[in-house]
Amino acid sequence: MRLSDKVNKMEFSPIRKFNPIAAATEASGVHVYHLNIGQPDIETPDVFMEAIRKFDQKVLAYAESPGLASLQDAIIGYFKPFGVELERKNVLVTSGGSEALSMVFTSILNEGDTVMIPEPYYTNYRTFIKAAAGEVTPITADPDKGYFFADEALLEASYRPTCKAIAVVNPGNPTGTILSKEDMEVICRFAKKHDLWVIADEVYREFAYDGRQMVSFGQLADYADRVIIIDSVSKRFSACGARIGFIICKNDELNSGLMKIAQGRLCCPTLEMIGATALYQLPSNYFDSIRVEYEGRRNVLYEGLSKIPGVKVNKPGGAFYMMVTLPVESAEDFLMFLLEEFRDNNETMMYAPAEGFYATPGLGKNEVRLAYILNQHDLKRSTEILAKALEAYKNR
Amino acid sequence: MRLSDKVNKMEFSPIRKFNPIAAATEASGVHVYHLNIGQPDIETPDVFMEAIRKFDQKVLAYAESPGLASLQDAIIGYFKPFGVELERKNVLVTSGGSEALSMVFTSILNEGDTVMIPEPYYTNYRTFIKAAAGEVTPITADPDKGYFFADEALLEASYRPTCKAIAVVNPGNPTGTILSKEDMEVICRFAKKHDLWVIADEVYREFAYDGRQMVSFGQLADYADRVIIIDSVSKRFSACGARIGFIICKNDELNSGLMKIAQGRLCCPTLEMIGATALYQLPSNYFDSIRVEYEGRRNVLYEGLSKIPGVKVNKPGGAFYMMVTLPVESAEDFLMFLLEEFRDNNETMMYAPAEGFYATPGLGKNEVRLAYILNQHDLKRSTEILAKALEAYKNR
Repeated sequence: MRLSDKVNKMEFSPIRKFNPIAAATEASGVHVYHLNIGQPDIETPDVFMEAIRKFDQKVLAYAESPGLASLQDAIIGYFKPFGVELERKNVLVTSGGSEALSMVFTSILNEGDTVMIPEPYYTNYRTFIKAAAGEVTPITADPDKGYFFADEALLEASYRPTCKAIAVVNPGNPTGTILSKEDMEVICRFAKKHDLWVIADEVYREFAYDGRQMVSFGQLADYADRVIIIDSVSKRFSACGARIGFIICKNDELNSGLMKIAQGRLCCPTLEMIGATALYQLPSNYFDSIRVEYEGRRNVLYEGLSKIPGVKVNKPGGAFYMMVTLPVESAEDFLMFLLEEFRDNNETMMYAPAEGFYATPGLGKNEVRLAYILNQHDLKRSTEILAKALEAYKNR
Repeated sequence: MRLSDKVNKMEFSPIRKFNPIAAATEASGVHVYHLNIGQPDIETPDVFMEAIRKFDQKVLAYAESPGLASLQDAIIGYFKPFGVELERKNVLVTSGGSEALSMVFTSILNEGDTVMIPEPYYTNYRTFIKAAAGEVTPITADPDKGYFFADEALLEASYRPTCKAIAVVNPGNPTGTILSKEDMEVICRFAKKHDLWVIADEVYREFAYDGRQMVSFGQLADYADRVIIIDSVSKRFSACGARIGFIICKNDELNSGLMKIAQGRLCCPTLEMIGATALYQLPSNYFDSIRVEYEGRRNVLYEGLSKIPGVKVNKPGGAFYMMVTLPVESAEDFLMFLLEEFRDNNETMMYAPAEGFYATPGLGKNEVRLAYILNQHDLKRSTEILAKALEAYKNR
C-alpha cells in the first residue's frame, strides 16, 4: 500500500499548517490577530441566511449537476454590466473556487504538463495542479516592480514547451497586483501564440482601489474560446464558509469535459446555492462601501508597515493582501516566535510565510503575506505587535 | 488547447445523461416516475433545518479543513455501537461521498494503476478513478448468483498486477448485495495478500433487510491499516442535497496525504456541517421505521417486476436498488421509448440503463437499475407502466 506520486509531491498548505499552533496559543488565553488567512470580518449580507431559512421542501434533494438554474441566471445578470454576455451553458456552479480549479486542471493536464503562474502565487494552485499530475512553471515577478508580470519578454522567458495554460489571479493573491485591459491583452496574445488556456481567477474582481476600473478577461471577445474564468462568493460577499464558486467558459469542448466531472460528483449543496442566488441579486452598489472599507484598511496597514525599520512593503492596487519583506532570515522561524514566545499585553499576530508561494527554490524565505481583513484598529495594533516582535526577535 | 487524456476517457453519467430528455418530457405535462436515481422521497429529519436556521454568526467563515469538531465527534459517537472506536484524526469530513472518493483515488493511484471493483458498479467510481489517471479492473459478478463476489477464486481470477485497491459498496449499489462479516474477511485477506487498499463504501449501512445484522469493515481490527471507509449523510438521512460525506481511516500516512488535498480545497460548507451534526445526534432507532419502509418498498417492487413476462429480477438484501434484466436488446433504446413515446394515462417511468455500470464491453446492455425510493403506490404503478411499455415496445 503506497500513496500516489501526485499526493507525495503535494505539500501541506503553508497558510493552514500553522493553524494548530495558533489554536494552542489561543487556547492558552492569548489573543492572536489573524492576518494569515483571507477570511474577512465583513458581515455576510443578511439576504444569504434569510433565503436559506425560508427553505421549506420536505426532502433536501440532489440538485442538477451544473447548479441551480436560478443561481446560474443570477450570475448571468451579475456579469451583464461588465459587458460579458453569458448563457446557462457557460456557467458551471462548483463547491467553491477550489473545486472549480480542481475540475479545470483535471480537464486540461496530462502527467508532466505544466501551468505558468506568476510567483509568488496562491499556494493551493500548486496543490490542484499536482493533484492533476502537473507541475507549476513559475513566472518570477519582481517585488521591486510591484510583482508586475504582464510583460511579453518575461512571459516568453518563462515559457516551456510543457506549458498548457497560464493562470493569473486578478486582482492578485498574494500580491494585490492589478492588470489593465492592455495587460490582459498581452497575456491573451501570448497564450494564443503558444496555444495555451488562460485561467483567470477573478474572485477579487470588485476589490480594486485608487479609482481603478475593474475589467474581466471575459470582456476580451477575441480570446473567448481559451479563457476560463474562476469565481466564487467567498470574498465578494464575505461568505467563505458557503463554498460556492463557479466556472465561466465559452469553449464547448471544455465545458463538455467539465460536465463529466460535475456529473460524477453529482451536485453542489442546495441550501448554499439558494443563499448564493440571493447574494448575486444584491444591487451592484453593495460593493461601494465594502471597497471604501478595504481601501482604508489597505492604507492603514501600508502606513503601519512602512514605519517599521527594515520592512519592505508593496502597496497593492487590489484584493486584500500585501506582500511584505521582513528583516529576518526565515519568516517561518519568526512566525513560530510570534506564536510560541512573543506576547505584547497578552496578544500576538500571525501572517502567512511566503516561501510556499514560490516554485523557485530559495525565494520568499523572508517574505510574508498579510491579509487586511480585520478592522483598521486591529490592523494598526497588528503592525505595532509586528514591530515590537521584530525588535524582540533581533535581541533574543 | 487540448483536453487531458483523463477527461477524454471519462464518460457522462449514465444515470444523469438522460435527465435533459426526462425534463423535456415533464415540461410537456407528462408525469415521470423517477426510479433512475437514488433520491429517496423520505423526509429529511427536521433537526437538520432547525439547526441551520439557528445559525446566527455575522460572518459565514471558513471552517477547519478536516471539518467541524462537533460533527467529527457526532460521527465518532455514531460508530461506537458498531464497535468501531475512532479519534478525530480518523474522521475527515468531505463534500459528499463523492469528494471522499475523489480524494482517496487521487491519494493512492498513479497513471495506469487500477482499482478492483465488482461489476455492475456505481458508475461514478469510474469517473473518480479516471480523474486520478487510473482504470477499473472489474470483478464480474454473476446475476444468477445474486451478484455475489466475495469469493476467493473469483477475486484471484480478476486480480492484475496493476491493482492498488479493491473497492466495494456494502450494501451494494446497484445490486443490493450484502456482505457478511466472513465475506469481509475473505476480501481483506485477499487484499492483504496482494497489498491492496480496501475501500469500503458503507453509505447504505442501515439499509439491510430480512433481519440481517449490519456490520462495518471498521470492525475488522486486523486490517485497520488498509481499510478506508467512505460514508455520507445523503442516503442515511435522506439529505442528498447536503453534500456532506466523510472518510474514516486509521492509516496515518494516508490521512496525511488526504489532509494535503483537504487543505488545498480549504473546507466543507459550514451550514451543512451544522445540519449534519444534528443528524448524527439522532437516536439510532430513527432508522427502524425507515428500514421497515424500504423493506416494504423492495417487496412491492420485487413482486411487481416478478409478474412481468421475460423480466429477470434479483431480490436484493440491502440498499435501495434492484438490478433487473429486461426482455429487450438495448435498455437505452427502450428508455428513450419510455421517455419520448410511451404514455399511459399521461404517465411514464424512468430507470438507469446498466451498460455504463460495466467495464467489460458487451455486458449489461439489457440490464437496468431501479431505485425503490418512491412510496409503494408509486412503485406499483411504475411496474404497471413498465409492463405495458414492454408490450407496446415489442409491438411497435
